[in-house]
Amino acid sequence: MSVTAIIAGAGRLPGLLVKALRANDAPVMVAAIAGTGAEDPGGVAFMPFHVERMAVLFDELTNRDVTRVVFAGGMSRPALDPALLDPGTAALLPRILPALQQGDDGLLRAVIEIFEDRGFEVMGAADIAPALCPGEGVLTQSAPSEQDQADADRAATILSTLGPLDLGQGAVVAQGLCLAIETLPGTDAMLKFAADYPRRPDPNGARGVFVKAPKPGQDLRVDMPVIGPATVAAAVKAGLAGIAFQAGGVMMLEQAETVAAADAAGLFLWSRAL
Amino acid sequence: MSVTAIIAGAGRLPGLLVKALRANDAPVMVAAIAGTGAEDPGGVAFMPFHVERMAVLFDELTNRDVTRVVFAGGMSRPALDPALLDPGTAALLPRILPALQQGDDGLLRAVIEIFEDRGFEVMGAADIAPALCPGEGVLTQSAPSEQDQADADRAATILSTLGPLDLGQGAVVAQGLCLAIETLPGTDAMLKFAADYPRRPDPNGARGVFVKAPKPGQDLRVDMPVIGPATVAAAVKAGLAGIAFQAGGVMMLEQAETVAAADAAGLFLWSRAL
Repeated sequence: MSVTAIIAGAGRLPGLLVKALRANDAPVMVAAIAGTGAEDPGGVAFMPFHVERMAVLFDELTNRDVTRVVFAGGMSRPALDPALLDPGTAALLPRILPALQQGDDGLLRAVIEIFEDRGFEVMGAADIAPALCPGEGVLTQSAPSEQDQADADRAATILSTLGPLDLGQGAVVAQGLCLAIETLPGTDAMLKFAADYPRRPDPNGARGVFVKAPKPGQDLRVDMPVIGPATVAAAVKAGLAGIAFQAGGVMMLEQAETVAAADAAGLFLWSRAL
Repeated sequence: MSVTAIIAGAGRLPGLLVKALRANDAPVMVAAIAGTGAEDPGGVAFMPFHVERMAVLFDELTNRDVTRVVFAGGMSRPALDPALLDPGTAALLPRILPALQQGDDGLLRAVIEIFEDRGFEVMGAADIAPALCPGEGVLTQSAPSEQDQADADRAATILSTLGPLDLGQGAVVAQGLCLAIETLPGTDAMLKFAADYPRRPDPNGARGVFVKAPKPGQDLRVDMPVIGPATVAAAVKAGLAGIAFQAGGVMMLEQAETVAAADAAGLFLWSRAL
């Protein structure tokens, strides 16, 4: 029977996927990327590998009847150790090195293509565990006001305007004014930037909304935006009223904890069409 | 003979304009906005006024044969003191208060319109002292490399894409990747943000370029982007290769000092069509 391999980086997602697959009695194993801090979720085969030895990994996966792979968890840009390179992976470098210059998206696209060329089906975490992506609706006790909705609309317009430039997974808007746009340093850096600017034109008016969505054309199989309790904490520090995100386009790994953290802070979480 | 009034905020610009006008024997006075830290440049009539007493200001300007006004210098958003309001200015509040919610541009547009309605011609600082806006060319010993030019092009594309949203006077791009986009907190905050992210995909590659330009439709009479030695210092801290800006659309008040600071740091300053 065909086996699914979780190509695992840091965090809880790989373990959650193992759990979801096992709940369906689907055969699963974990191939953990060395250096990412990927942890053994237990209960299934666990095989660490070095990115420098990807060709060796392909053979091992095939030997274990793996036909599908799912990339999951945090993967920082690797520093390659030439001493570890196997000949097959060395032959792939002409494809990988240019991609390294093209941002995370370019690198991930190149890696997906290499897996696909070797005959593996590359699935998204949300395909395997759709419950990880909240559907449309307000998840919290607090709900967006009219001004919050207008702020969310403006942030969404900023993101859709920037999308064709392969830019902008997130933006913060308060009282119609853009406080921050997500760039290379990422969501946490952007929310910290917004936290350094607590002033609002009307001090008693809307506090602002953080909107998160995938970029148009972003490959959600390997790079789906994620929010969780840490995102809520950062939004609270930034003094925002809430977080709006694209229904079906953003993962929430720890939904109960995330909603509880938002409720405790009076923040809204709003999954909506964008 | 018709007098020009400099409506003065903080910084050196009001004094530079007085100097430029006096060099042409044009009659000039300074109306200093209270609370901005506007300084008396000396040599001409100096009249501080409160924004709450704008109607009184109009009468005084007319009494002094003022027909043209030039807004110059730093003006932070005012906190209005109702106790100071004169009846004429109170009558203007229905126009000013909604504009306060629309960002700096909206507020400035409203103030310009009020001056124009009262019969004053509103001029731009660059109209009076065109030498303050560098023409096209590289001003420094260091010149942009091909990669720097590509980074500047990408940043310019980001700005022109955001322009229709009344957003984006500046952006930082390094090796094709967007590090930061200017939002409400302004240029200094953006460059500080970029400085917190010194990593580059290729550590030996291009360091990045800060591009500054007015937004399309921005009223350059009251809100022309400015760069100076502090901008250079911030760009150096951010580890950038240089600053590119729109020729004719950005003011450089202290050109000699700014170029000297850039040369001392090996930074380029590139005035170009954008």
